[in-house]
Amino acid sequence: MSGPVQSIERAAAVLRLLAGGPGRLGLGEVASALGLAKGTAHGILRTLQHVDFVEQDQATGKYQLGAALLHLGSSYLDVNELRSRSINWADALAARSGEAVRLGTPLEGRVLIVHHVFRPDDTLQTLDVGSLLPLHASSLGKVLLAFGATPLEPVVAAGLETYTRHTAGTAEELGRALAEIREAGWAADIQEMIMGEAGVAAPIRGHGGLVVGAMGVTGALERICDSKGRPHPPLVDMVRGAARAVSRDLGAARW
Amino acid sequence: MSGPVQSIERAAAVLRLLAGGPGRLGLGEVASALGLAKGTAHGILRTLQHVDFVEQDQATGKYQLGAALLHLGSSYLDVNELRSRSINWADALAARSGEAVRLGTPLEGRVLIVHHVFRPDDTLQTLDVGSLLPLHASSLGKVLLAFGATPLEPVVAAGLETYTRHTAGTAEELGRALAEIREAGWAADIQEMIMGEAGVAAPIRGHGGLVVGAMGVTGALERICDSKGRPHPPLVDMVRGAARAVSRDLGAARW
Repeated sequence: MSGPVQSIERAAAVLRLLAGGPGRLGLGEVASALGLAKGTAHGILRTLQHVDFVEQDQATGKYQLGAALLHLGSSYLDVNELRSRSINWADALAARSGEAVRLGTPLEGRVLIVHHVFRPDDTLQTLDVGSLLPLHASSLGKVLLAFGATPLEPVVAAGLETYTRHTAGTAEELGRALAEIREAGWAADIQEMIMGEAGVAAPIRGHGGLVVGAMGVTGALERICDSKGRPHPPLVDMVRGAARAVSRDLGAARW
Repeated sequence: MSGPVQSIERAAAVLRLLAGGPGRLGLGEVASALGLAKGTAHGILRTLQHVDFVEQDQATGKYQLGAALLHLGSSYLDVNELRSRSINWADALAARSGEAVRLGTPLEGRVLIVHHVFRPDDTLQTLDVGSLLPLHASSLGKVLLAFGATPLEPVVAAGLETYTRHTAGTAEELGRALAEIREAGWAADIQEMIMGEAGVAAPIRGHGGLVVGAMGVTGALERICDSKGRPHPPLVDMVRGAARAVSRDLGAARW
């Protein structure tokens, strides 16, 4: 068995650093953030620049992510089976529910949005594909945690950021919420990330029944929830039905 | 000066290979396509998998691009100044022209689409962001070639694929077309990639006046062109005006 290649791991760490920060970093900032000698960091950055994974700003000499990554990212979407099997069901769910639909899969302790259908009205909306959401404060993420698509321990260990007073901020709160989700078969997030917004999500299962993603709607609290602050049951049924249809297309057994 | 890091170059070649092919490749296919020993290819693939740049299909053992690339690609867009400075002008151009608007920048001998505003009607359209177009058969690409944003020689050396009978298929034809574009200050592609489709594009200049991208409209031949088969002059003016406005925002001098 061959071991991991250190320079590739370091190159990936440089790219993650550039993606996570303000956008542009100098050589010294990259080296110190990753605990590398400047010469080592320079060799990695120059190589990444050579393959168009990184660009250097002419004026400041600072580094930023490069154009080749955009093409690789869109190529990822082209072969992503979860997304391709979901497109028609997501369109139908958006049309029937009147709400925005998003699909998520786990990445590095967060939810990566792999598909997003805008709410079918004329309001200005921005595409969330490629964005990362917190696992513990989104219905998509709580579905992934509840059904074992991604481990809970690192999420708790990293600390549960409380975005609003409704976010599950302790391991106990989150654990109770996940147990309820497992019992119910679906998740809601009600003003847990942004006040005034709510969402409902259900698991997508792949071949063999393992949960590989989550599908859900998000929108204004007063549209998603009834007067008691609970998601409208017909909306929950629509979300669960759509997620089940995708699962069927992915080869999951009926359940 | 540190030299390029071989294993990072190889890892980038693996990712490009996976992006360019049918989507999924086995270890042997990757190794032979890149002329690597199987053990070397395996070490690279395992490391890329470890950092979520590559995923392995459970059933077939084949490799495909991984989810982390989607996040890196969308992070590239977030810091791309050409795109951020163009968004409002591109929206306005789509609204005024009634056509789809796209922005391109050079990548690996092709045009990378970094922004795409749909034609403002209810027809089904798919997002081209992240796609690569041929330089010699698109108005965006010919602008990039004509104004020196990317070199001509490798494009000619790679062979000029003739998509239709209107594509510039020889170095002489392409050279004449580029000279006209330099003279006119804008480019058209009329059924050069797809029969029945046409486009108009103009250069975007950055700080210092260098051409850094191209902006254009594409649509049905009968809407873009007049009865003589030439693009409607008011449409050309709109495209040139929008590209000039973006250039101004990017810090180019008035011209």
